[in-house]
Amino acid sequence: MELEKLLGELARPAATKMVLVVLDGIGGLPVPECGGKTELEAAHTPNLDALAQRSELGLAHPVLPGITPGSSAGHLALFGYDPLKYIIGRGVLEALGIGFPLEPQDVAVRANFATVRHTPEGIVVTDRRAGRPATEHTAKICALLQENIPEIEGVPVFIRPVKEHRFVVVFRSPELGEQVADTDPQAVGAPPLPPRALTPEAAKTAAVAAKFLERLAALLKDEPATNYALLRGFSRRPQLTLFPERFKVRAGAIAVYPMYRGLASLTGMELLPVAGETIAAEMASLKENWDGYDFFFLHVKGTDSRGEDGNWEGKVKVIEEFDRLLPEILALGPDALVITGDHSTPAVYRGHSWHPVPFLVHSRWVRPRRETQGFSEAACAAGTLGHFPLLYTMNLLLAHAGRLTKFSA
Amino acid sequence: MELEKLLGELARPAATKMVLVVLDGIGGLPVPECGGKTELEAAHTPNLDALAQRSELGLAHPVLPGITPGSSAGHLALFGYDPLKYIIGRGVLEALGIGFPLEPQDVAVRANFATVRHTPEGIVVTDRRAGRPATEHTAKICALLQENIPEIEGVPVFIRPVKEHRFVVVFRSPELGEQVADTDPQAVGAPPLPPRALTPEAAKTAAVAAKFLERLAALLKDEPATNYALLRGFSRRPQLTLFPERFKVRAGAIAVYPMYRGLASLTGMELLPVAGETIAAEMASLKENWDGYDFFFLHVKGTDSRGEDGNWEGKVKVIEEFDRLLPEILALGPDALVITGDHSTPAVYRGHSWHPVPFLVHSRWVRPRRETQGFSEAACAAGTLGHFPLLYTMNLLLAHAGRLTKFSA
Repeated sequence: MELEKLLGELARPAATKMVLVVLDGIGGLPVPECGGKTELEAAHTPNLDALAQRSELGLAHPVLPGITPGSSAGHLALFGYDPLKYIIGRGVLEALGIGFPLEPQDVAVRANFATVRHTPEGIVVTDRRAGRPATEHTAKICALLQENIPEIEGVPVFIRPVKEHRFVVVFRSPELGEQVADTDPQAVGAPPLPPRALTPEAAKTAAVAAKFLERLAALLKDEPATNYALLRGFSRRPQLTLFPERFKVRAGAIAVYPMYRGLASLTGMELLPVAGETIAAEMASLKENWDGYDFFFLHVKGTDSRGEDGNWEGKVKVIEEFDRLLPEILALGPDALVITGDHSTPAVYRGHSWHPVPFLVHSRWVRPRRETQGFSEAACAAGTLGHFPLLYTMNLLLAHAGRLTKFSA
Repeated sequence: MELEKLLGELARPAATKMVLVVLDGIGGLPVPECGGKTELEAAHTPNLDALAQRSELGLAHPVLPGITPGSSAGHLALFGYDPLKYIIGRGVLEALGIGFPLEPQDVAVRANFATVRHTPEGIVVTDRRAGRPATEHTAKICALLQENIPEIEGVPVFIRPVKEHRFVVVFRSPELGEQVADTDPQAVGAPPLPPRALTPEAAKTAAVAAKFLERLAALLKDEPATNYALLRGFSRRPQLTLFPERFKVRAGAIAVYPMYRGLASLTGMELLPVAGETIAAEMASLKENWDGYDFFFLHVKGTDSRGEDGNWEGKVKVIEEFDRLLPEILALGPDALVITGDHSTPAVYRGHSWHPVPFLVHSRWVRPRRETQGFSEAACAAGTLGHFPLLYTMNLLLAHAGRLTKFSA
């Protein structure tokens, strides 16, 4: 029996509360110039350290050892969806990232403005990013396109700016397959590729996309740089059994960044309002909504952003900020609490990495390690949970919250 | 290649002896009122502790992290059968629990005596457990039923009491499918559900079961409480390659409780006689049978029973009792010895739990941990075996006993 089916059969409602705190990109690496410490080791975290003493620690692999996950893969695992089974396409991810309300039938495409030159043999790409236009310029062009291309052959079209040369196109129709090849030739001097259907069901999508490019080229023919577009990552929302149904919980998501709100909403969690962008504002939302939900996903973005920037000290500060607020979660008395990440983002690495993520689970049913320890990569490596797939996060949360019945007789 | 096929191909006979000791429900949780210790930590176990120094320790997951296994799932894993692949139905388990010799063709059903009331619209259930009759009463009624219903439409029927309102019905015929829906409406005031075939192959089973209920109702119509029965868990023995054949061993099982004897016998192990119900009696059986077998499954029930009762001290005492007798096993000089459980049953949790089970393997080929350690959950969490699926128990036993050839060239 598959894990997904198994959990669905064993999950039962209960009067218990669960909190899943995701410190995005929490895992780090030791930095010689910073006393040889990781961000978690250097941070002054009396509350996390005290909690670690009364918790089980371990290291969790978002996908597999050595595999660096994108944000969507890490979060899918955290929510109990196998990231090797459910793939979120780049078009969908880009749409989620700007908070676009994707419907199940939508085909989303990640688009780049590009510059093309006309030659006797046809057009060729001269700049795959159109000289990286300002975001404002992209927004203006997208508005122009949206006004002139509201639909193609009866298919509603949505055009939204993202950042610099990037924008999103969404085609909405139940008749569209999503298997269409990228049009980016990946080389300057080459002609853009036509949108080619990879399955019979995607024929109409390819035709609509080709017409979209035709009309876009006509509308932008006098633009000096942003006179064409390359389309990538045609995709639809993955079809998955929704989180509240699978786990028999009322699930609320507390996140500030659109992509994470989008990921939570893909799985059917309710998005809870947050008044501001701080961790304190997220905590306030948790308190306000405490009675209305059984499960809370609380996402902290700063740890990942500082890590991506290579800002070791900044990441330490975000960890300390969370630590100061941790007592507010504990005061609510969750029956089961997990604090972990969706992947590691070591500041010294300046990006997502493959290193397993520190993981803490707290409930009244834990086997803590006796020896003094804080919450760090090293303490987690020596923790009583050992190494395990991050996909088992929901198993552990549900078990510790008394929400899984016994398997088999 | 699947593990099961792999082991089958690699296993070879050898002149070595293996012992698998299952301390049922051995894993525990720390209890503040008991010095913050688990049962294993508190128990005075000089022999286990000394053995742990010369062994590899680890923590094993019977099914998956967070999943609490029933006894059958844990034992299937121990015997090398994937518990997510081989499911033992409730009817079969109930039959095993009373030592009924199930044949491969038998469909076993877990039955409850119930009370029904006659209304103009038909019968409705007024007590799903018939007021919990005394076991003696159930035995008397079962004898009456057996006498009057020896067969139905040529299908032999076996009716056996279990405890209080519970009994077992077995239909024996090669023509019977087992996919029949439960008849328990799970609510008082509702009519019992008819035995409904869920597959075409089960049509005859459903018809025979319906006739069984009809005749039962007629025979018991004057009983004040036990005047009807609800049927659940129609099931057949799982079809599996037998243990002695898979592993090329002569396998003997030493267990006192019928369910564990039944599980062992399902896999084709021989049941060895035990003169009494004590661990000492089991040890005597081990010694007596030492020359006749290559593999011994030795099951200790007390650890689980005390755990289920919430009797922390009682569980400690059973562990100490086993420890005193452990030298008798060592004196026999097994080539490979595993001491573990089928699941954890922390006394403070009063039931099976999802926590991984302490695991010890001893042979001349071990990598022990250098630091002084006893045999406890914490020592196993820090052990050289790490965390692993309990399903690999037979891999380890066979390997340490020199009974697995090299895989691939």
